[in-house]
Parts: sequence; C-alpha cells; structure tokens
Amino acid sequence: MHTIRVNVGKGYDINIGEGLLGKVGELVSTVKSPECKAVVITDSNVAKLHLFDCQQSLRASGFDTTAVIFDAGEESKTMSMIGKILEGMAEKGVTRNDIVIALGGGVTGDMAGFAAGVYMRGIPFVQVPTTLLAAVDSSVGGKTAVDLPSGKNLAGLFYQPEMVICDTLLLETLPEEEYKCGLAEAIKTGILSDEELFRIFEEGDPKEKLPEIIARCAEYKAGVVMRDEKEKGERKLLNLGHTAGHAIEKLSNYEMKHGFAVAAGLGIIGRAASGLGYCSEETAKRIENVLLRNGLPVNTDFDDREIAEAALSDKKRSGKTITIAVPISIGNCDLKEIETDNLEEIIMLGKKALK
Amino acid sequence: MHTIRVNVGKGYDINIGEGLLGKVGELVSTVKSPECKAVVITDSNVAKLHLFDCQQSLRASGFDTTAVIFDAGEESKTMSMIGKILEGMAEKGVTRNDIVIALGGGVTGDMAGFAAGVYMRGIPFVQVPTTLLAAVDSSVGGKTAVDLPSGKNLAGLFYQPEMVICDTLLLETLPEEEYKCGLAEAIKTGILSDEELFRIFEEGDPKEKLPEIIARCAEYKAGVVMRDEKEKGERKLLNLGHTAGHAIEKLSNYEMKHGFAVAAGLGIIGRAASGLGYCSEETAKRIENVLLRNGLPVNTDFDDREIAEAALSDKKRSGKTITIAVPISIGNCDLKEIETDNLEEIIMLGKKALK
Repeated sequence: MHTIRVNVGKGYDINIGEGLLGKVGELVSTVKSPECKAVVITDSNVAKLHLFDCQQSLRASGFDTTAVIFDAGEESKTMSMIGKILEGMAEKGVTRNDIVIALGGGVTGDMAGFAAGVYMRGIPFVQVPTTLLAAVDSSVGGKTAVDLPSGKNLAGLFYQPEMVICDTLLLETLPEEEYKCGLAEAIKTGILSDEELFRIFEEGDPKEKLPEIIARCAEYKAGVVMRDEKEKGERKLLNLGHTAGHAIEKLSNYEMKHGFAVAAGLGIIGRAASGLGYCSEETAKRIENVLLRNGLPVNTDFDDREIAEAALSDKKRSGKTITIAVPISIGNCDLKEIETDNLEEIIMLGKKALK
Repeated sequence: MHTIRVNVGKGYDINIGEGLLGKVGELVSTVKSPECKAVVITDSNVAKLHLFDCQQSLRASGFDTTAVIFDAGEESKTMSMIGKILEGMAEKGVTRNDIVIALGGGVTGDMAGFAAGVYMRGIPFVQVPTTLLAAVDSSVGGKTAVDLPSGKNLAGLFYQPEMVICDTLLLETLPEEEYKCGLAEAIKTGILSDEELFRIFEEGDPKEKLPEIIARCAEYKAGVVMRDEKEKGERKLLNLGHTAGHAIEKLSNYEMKHGFAVAAGLGIIGRAASGLGYCSEETAKRIENVLLRNGLPVNTDFDDREIAEAALSDKKRSGKTITIAVPISIGNCDLKEIETDNLEEIIMLGKKALK
C-alpha cells in the first residue's frame, strides 16, 4: 500500500493499493471510531458490483452500516438529487457523529461529497474511487459539484475528505472508455509536471503501471491543492486542456465523455502554445502522439467561434480576461492571462494541424 | 453608526444604525469594488418594501445590480428552492467575481447565504437583515440552512458574510409578532451573558433601545462565534431554550413561530434548572416574568414525552447523550451533558409551575 499525505485543512491520507476495498473498514476506523454509522453513498451501477464487499468490510470493523443509492449517470448531478440523498440520510437517522463513504466514480464523489458537506452543515466523508478518472483526478482536491440547467458544475463546495482509499483492482472492472478517460487526465498530469510519468504513456504499458500512475497523479495534485486549496492561482494549472475541453463537452451535449473532450482540448492547447511560441512544435507533436497512442482524440470538428463562446459561458470566466494553462515543455506548464476577445483566435490556432 | 468586528475567517463588520439601507452601496463598496454585479436575493414580501431602495443605493455606488426573488415563507426553505435560486443567478450571468446581497429576515439569510456558499463553490455575500430576529440572531454567525422533509435546518453550511448591514429603521415596518420573535432571542442573550441587557426587557421599553439591544446581542454572539465557529463547544450555549423550543415548534407543525417556541423553551429550561438545583427559583421566576412582560409564552401544553421525542430526532443529538444549556444565574449559563434517557424527566420538571 502506498500512502500520500495531503496537508489541506486538518489533512488526510490517500491510500493506494490492490484489494483495499476489503480493508475499507479497517482503514476508516483509523480516522473515525466505529461506534457510529457508516453511510455508503453510491450509484445503482457501482452498488451491484462493490456495495456488498464495502459494507461487509465496514461491518467487520464494527461499523453500523447503511446505504443511499442514486441512479447512475451524469443526469443525476442535480440539486434535486442532492435533496433526495440528504433526505435518504435523514430517514436513515444519520447524525453529525456518523461518516459518509463515497463509493464510485467522479459523479459519486461529487454528489456524496456535496451531500456530506451540507448534511447537518457538514459530516465527515471518505472517498473510495472506483474509476481511474476518479482515482487520478476527482477524488483528490475536495471539489464537489452538481450541474444547473445553465451549466455543468455550477454549484458545489470545497470539502475535504478524511481519507481516500483507492483499490487498484476495482479499476480492472472498468469499461475501456472509462479507462481511457482516466488516462487523459493522467497524461495531462504528465504534461503539467512529470516527464517520467508522461513517458509511461509515450512508451510503456499504462495498464501494468496503474498503482504508480495513480500515486504520481495523486501526489502532484495533492501538492497543488495544498498550496492553493481554493483555486486562486496555481490550481488553475490543473485546467490544462479544460478550457477547450469543457467547451467541446458542452457542444456535444455531453455525449462526448469528459476525458475524450479533455484529450481534444490538450491537443488544441498544445498546438496553440506552439503557434504562440510558448512551446516548441516538437512538444505539441509529442502531446498529439501520446494521446493518439492511447486511443484518444487530439482535435474536434466544432467551430472555433462556438468553442470560444461555450468556453466563455463557463464559470471560470471572471470579467474581461481568462487565465489559461499552456505547456512550455513536457513536465512544465504556465498560466497566461488572456483577453477573452482573443480566445477565438487562440482556438483557431490550436485547431490547425501541425506541419 | 455602531460597528462590531467579527474575527472569523478573514473577518467582517456588523454595521448597525438608522437609515443604513440608503448606504448599502457605499458600505458594500468598502468590501467589494463596484466593478461587478450585486445580486439582491430577497423574498416576495421584502421585495415590495425594500428592494427598490436597496438596488438604488447599490446603483448609486456604481454596482451593476440584479435580483432573484423567491416566494416568502418557511415553505421556501427547501433544496429545490435553492436549486431555483442558483439557476436564477446563472441565468443572470452571475460570476465568481460578483456579490450576493441577502435582503430579508432569517429565511432569506439562510437561503441567500446557502446559495452564495455553493454558487460556483462560493461567492461573497452581505447580509441586510430586515427583521429584529435576523438582526439580533440569524445574521450573525454564518449558519445557513434549508429544511428537509425529515426535519428543519437539516442541510446547510457555515459560510461567513463579508459584512452585515443592519438598518434599525426597517424594523419599524415589522408586524408585532415578528418583533416579539426577535425579543425572545434577545432576552435569551440577556439570560446567557448580560444582566444589563436583561434589565431592558425586565424594566425598560425595548422599542426605544433597539440599536443598543442589537449591538449587545450581535457583540455577544460574534464573540461566541469567534471562539467556536463550527459549534463544537461554547456555541452550543446559544441553544439555550432551543432543545424544548425546537421540539415545540415541530409539534405545532411550525404553526407556532420560532421566537414563541423558544420563549416557551426558555421558561421550561429555567424551571427545570431551578428544579435540578442549577439555579435559584428566583432566577427561574425572573425568566418567566420577563417573557410574560414582553408578551411571550412561558410554557406549553404539549406532552413531556412528545417533546423529548421530538427533541431527540433533532440534528443536535449525537449518540446517547445530548448537551443542553442551562441558566446558573441571569447573565451566566453553562453546558451540561445529559443522558438522552433523562431528557423526558427534565422536561417534565420544566413544565411544572413554580411554587
């Protein structure tokens, strides 16, 4: 088992290893005395696969355990579903003294984290990610969110877990598409900060190195989050590829998966950065190649102007400029504040094929 | 104008004075540059009375201003209404760079504070209380909440405002019942910490001393909140009279107003504390008399067992004991941890008339 310490708020551990689902009870009991209820919040798909094992482990460690299950899918990420989950918790007699276990992918982490953060003004929770995307990205950092009719992730809070428990065996049950979504965020981390990690995707077999990939991604993200919990500065780096990525996801009516849209966004920002002279053409080329090698897209058919408009209706815009992350070289990125008026041209540049 | 500084988080001022609604723009601009939108969140009743003046003042100070109005009443305190308010904000193009003005009573403060706290994971807000209850109690301390079908205030967050602006002239537009609700909480503050404040209600005319009453209540509550933001210890003192009070409110199906139920709860805990030897019978008698003198109830017809059961289904229960605040003398209270099994007897004692 590999453990990474995140020193945000009172701090918490990210535990990564094979078979940790069977040790959830034991691990949770190191942060919360088992004389309480452990409420597993999970979706209808993950419930079928892993709820029994998770609850059995909790029970074996002396926790009283109950579950609140919601319909799987991004469509569940609404305020009204949060209301239902909260009422489910209330009906099951959950008190301030109890703990939430968020068992699932990114949507579950978002929902369960939000619910834990507002139930009785906040009760503790533990993340148990079951997708590669959640393991490398969404389970670290304390961001929770739901969608509003006007846009994705428009409501939420920063709420840190007591612990993250990442069982790498669970990731083997993932459909290939889900797995690739996780790879896209992991590749992003490589571009951002870690050429050695990037090389795993460039030359190696990621499937054989999942624990290492997760540990490196979690470690990097944990570091950024520690230095910038509330996304005032450095944390914006994590949005590399996400300005165009979110816009593409939105323009596809969310039919394109987040990781695929981010991959296209990474391709675009790589080429744009090369066109603007921030990075070499070779760097942009390496980004394209690594994405293609891992079965991910590197561009989109949506129009420059559509992408710019969709990006600017995103919550990250504040005023006349936006901050975007750009690659300088593999393992080194930087933040640039650009005029919103110039975004369309930058995307046009990013959509152009390299020579 | 009287200003009280609250040093919680980055800290904020509570400004109290006559006619401050006309200075909202000027005051808000000391904490937020007016190159942004000020979104006034208010209910349908308060909108008719004060929205125009509030927005005019904001506009005069250079703010772009918009409003989100929800139906007045406790029935609006739901997750689904929060969802509607958030979507209203999104439709009006509110960004992270903007500010929320919560204009209204306790319900509005709860709702607007919650909405500000989760919109884009938190944007700044200013409280402008328009009821005595909100001025002396709910606008200080950063507690926000909505009700769930299972119970009141079961969801919410701790979220501190940038400033509280309390215009004492607004309180003159209050219906008598609303006014008395505020008195009940102010009398509670007197019992808790301030015999001089208590004497205003015992001997004086509170209507003539509203600025002083509000300042004393806000100052005391601000002090407690500074020492215990998240209600781990001392802050529980503020629940004096609320264990039975909340239960009575609930048993009346919320037909009895909060302040009246709290008054009955104060009468009950006063007599119970005297019966248990925590305070003298004279203290219990003074509590009764001050409530009666101000047109408030001191007891209830609900059954001991019903009250105890309703109190124990409240969110403040955690495990086998509950912490209750009891008077020792006027201006001095203490916390006692009691077995939940003993609560019914304590309430029985509290319902008995003094000799």
